[in-house]
Amino acid sequence: MIHDPIEALTNYVRCPSVSADSSYADGLNAAREFAARQLQDLGFEVDIIKTPKHPIIFAERGGDPSWPCVLIYGHYDVQPADPFELWDSPAFEPRVRDSRIFGRGSADNKGPQIVHMTALGRVLTKYPELPLRIKYLIEGEEEIGSPSFKGFLNEHKDRLAADMVLVSDTGSPSPEQIVVTTGLRGLAGFEVKVRGPKSDLHSGVHGGAVMNPLQALMQICSSLHGPDGRVNVPGFYDDVLPVFQWEQDELARMPTTLEEYKDFLGVPEFHSADGYTPFEALRFGPTLEFNGVGGGYQGEGKKTVIPSEAFAKISCRLVPNQKGRDIAELVMKAIRDRCPPSVTVEVSDPEMGDPYLVVPPGHENTPADQSPFFARAFTHAEKAIKGSFGTKPIYLREGGSIPIISDLKEVVGLDSLLIGLFTPEDNLHAPNESFHLGILEKAISAFEEFFVDLASG
Amino acid sequence: MIHDPIEALTNYVRCPSVSADSSYADGLNAAREFAARQLQDLGFEVDIIKTPKHPIIFAERGGDPSWPCVLIYGHYDVQPADPFELWDSPAFEPRVRDSRIFGRGSADNKGPQIVHMTALGRVLTKYPELPLRIKYLIEGEEEIGSPSFKGFLNEHKDRLAADMVLVSDTGSPSPEQIVVTTGLRGLAGFEVKVRGPKSDLHSGVHGGAVMNPLQALMQICSSLHGPDGRVNVPGFYDDVLPVFQWEQDELARMPTTLEEYKDFLGVPEFHSADGYTPFEALRFGPTLEFNGVGGGYQGEGKKTVIPSEAFAKISCRLVPNQKGRDIAELVMKAIRDRCPPSVTVEVSDPEMGDPYLVVPPGHENTPADQSPFFARAFTHAEKAIKGSFGTKPIYLREGGSIPIISDLKEVVGLDSLLIGLFTPEDNLHAPNESFHLGILEKAISAFEEFFVDLASG
Repeated sequence: MIHDPIEALTNYVRCPSVSADSSYADGLNAAREFAARQLQDLGFEVDIIKTPKHPIIFAERGGDPSWPCVLIYGHYDVQPADPFELWDSPAFEPRVRDSRIFGRGSADNKGPQIVHMTALGRVLTKYPELPLRIKYLIEGEEEIGSPSFKGFLNEHKDRLAADMVLVSDTGSPSPEQIVVTTGLRGLAGFEVKVRGPKSDLHSGVHGGAVMNPLQALMQICSSLHGPDGRVNVPGFYDDVLPVFQWEQDELARMPTTLEEYKDFLGVPEFHSADGYTPFEALRFGPTLEFNGVGGGYQGEGKKTVIPSEAFAKISCRLVPNQKGRDIAELVMKAIRDRCPPSVTVEVSDPEMGDPYLVVPPGHENTPADQSPFFARAFTHAEKAIKGSFGTKPIYLREGGSIPIISDLKEVVGLDSLLIGLFTPEDNLHAPNESFHLGILEKAISAFEEFFVDLASG
Repeated sequence: MIHDPIEALTNYVRCPSVSADSSYADGLNAAREFAARQLQDLGFEVDIIKTPKHPIIFAERGGDPSWPCVLIYGHYDVQPADPFELWDSPAFEPRVRDSRIFGRGSADNKGPQIVHMTALGRVLTKYPELPLRIKYLIEGEEEIGSPSFKGFLNEHKDRLAADMVLVSDTGSPSPEQIVVTTGLRGLAGFEVKVRGPKSDLHSGVHGGAVMNPLQALMQICSSLHGPDGRVNVPGFYDDVLPVFQWEQDELARMPTTLEEYKDFLGVPEFHSADGYTPFEALRFGPTLEFNGVGGGYQGEGKKTVIPSEAFAKISCRLVPNQKGRDIAELVMKAIRDRCPPSVTVEVSDPEMGDPYLVVPPGHENTPADQSPFFARAFTHAEKAIKGSFGTKPIYLREGGSIPIISDLKEVVGLDSLLIGLFTPEDNLHAPNESFHLGILEKAISAFEEFFVDLASG
């Protein structure tokens, strides 16, 4: 067990565990071994469980069956780090500067894991007999949509029985203000390929006779939003939950101003779908985004070619009560329907995750199946966070997706307490990702208190 | 002098002279040296003239000033060869199979140059005193829009005085049917860059608040064509010349059927702008094509990112009497006007070339400034081609662009006789480019006769 959390995090980030790219297999192995060793050092019984892709770490601290049981989730994989040339220091050689540690995965999700582990290490050193059962699940496929996770849950659900799940893979607005996330957006993503001529064509010799696959792709893609900024797919908004008053009140407590957020993003103007303010749109509204589009000549200079094919990687963020499968089917159907006859279109099998919702005690719209234990966990977390950070957490739905959270609810029946430890400045999924060292220290203290309180039920 | 034209062409193609990519400087040098050596061996006085980018070869066979003078044009540079993995044999290691020689540049434009040089070699061996002055211009920037060529013409126009230009850098429909090209499309090309957030964003954390630059780019680009397939830019068609009856008659002589052409292209349906059949559209109609579009994650798997920027490489093919500068300005203005305020757009300086038109003797719409000598050259060419290939050439406008042809007309006052030696099967600008060896041999014979006749005036 490394007792210095910064040293531990440095060693963890140094393992380049990019799950989307098969050339990073060694980095994934190294990250998994590192996390497993940390849990062994904490006294957990560790089991590495094979999946079709990247193994899952399962670890357990047993105890009296009457003790409360918390299941802690994390992921040891990270996003790709390219474009590498935009990093100020190498993505996988962590550096500490300006109260931050920089490196791919430092905030998503390695830093928060080190927070939990360090807090547990301190608590269990002080209270070796703490009456709290703890289970750990650390997967290696979160950044590619957790394709093996649901199958894993179905196969191992008996071992996973617990009272709640604890996850720190969401955001907070600043190092002073923690958010407990009460909802997550779901995801429906797929790749569209448009094919035209059987090989690339000279745009002079043949231009005019054929549909350019890039033109067809862009026509299809640009039809997917209306002039009001809303997704232009029939039925897309049918199941969207309205925003509750208490959610608007909590949103009003967020310290960030629109002007600050615009400066942070560096955009000339916001662009939200009609019916949502920018801050509402990224939490309570669904989206359809183009994550990557390509076709034709990508190099230096020019090449007067009509490409043979073009692609778009599309993903929708979904809000309660949209269903991933329904939305994927609606959007894929719209794309197929809108493909002109002069080209062909192919849509990959979609990856999907449903949105998720919990409600803190005493607030409107509490789901009927939310347990009393979970309500108490909300209260313990509020006390611990207020004690360590000085302010009450904000309860807010979040724009990101953790598809496994709704899978844990569906398969194992567990709600997740989502305590956000990264901030917008952490540059998740982008160059110069970092994790704030002030949050690291305060959160370790908060979790020490939380784990002790949770043992009391 | 290599007397075997296939061996000569093999050695020429082996020089990877990609002008668009600065890493191919050695290949450009080798190709230039190869071509210069061929001309020296023919007895020409060769001068390598520096330009801001790639030097131009100027060569001359002098003689009595009363002799006719032909200026032969070619280019030693080639298109990029990527995607390399789609080539059946390496792009720069020429292979002969199925009566063809495969390799980047084999047809565009190295094969036709070897035809001219071999014919001249044979003629000058037989008639060392042939009363024909010959000048040669072989440039190295054709595939990047000949940026140095017009400046070169202006600086050296006195040395370039001649009675006509001969060029073989256009197409014919089959190895049996030669086309003499009577018009070329012009070109107006530029790159569009759309910029949104200052760095790539997590599409969950921030999606909904900002305009995705890919979405904005695709909206702008898809607005550039109407549902009728025509370019949707005000004024774009204002100066387009109608199609003359004799041109339609010549087009009817083309041996290729629409069904054959569709099979060759491998498209499910043609797609032409309203008002043009597919065969008309690629000769007599202007176009706007997307040669390359990119932004966001291009790799394996997925990355749920909102990219910071996206680009499109756009080029228009222009027909008489459109002007490159006018059209570039119209299209660039439309793009700027249609950019939403939530992103910024930047358009590169355009590259331009005007379209070109000549008319064979006895046909409607002959330009007033076409010389009597040029009319006789048409007649000599018709006789030589009919003698060697067995059929009269077809006189037809062509879809490709050779911007330097209109520059030669404007600066030096010369019309160009464009005798097409490549065919659609040659895969110009695409993987598996090749040159037909039957055309090579017949064309050498035809040009032997043509050069001898041309000497008679």
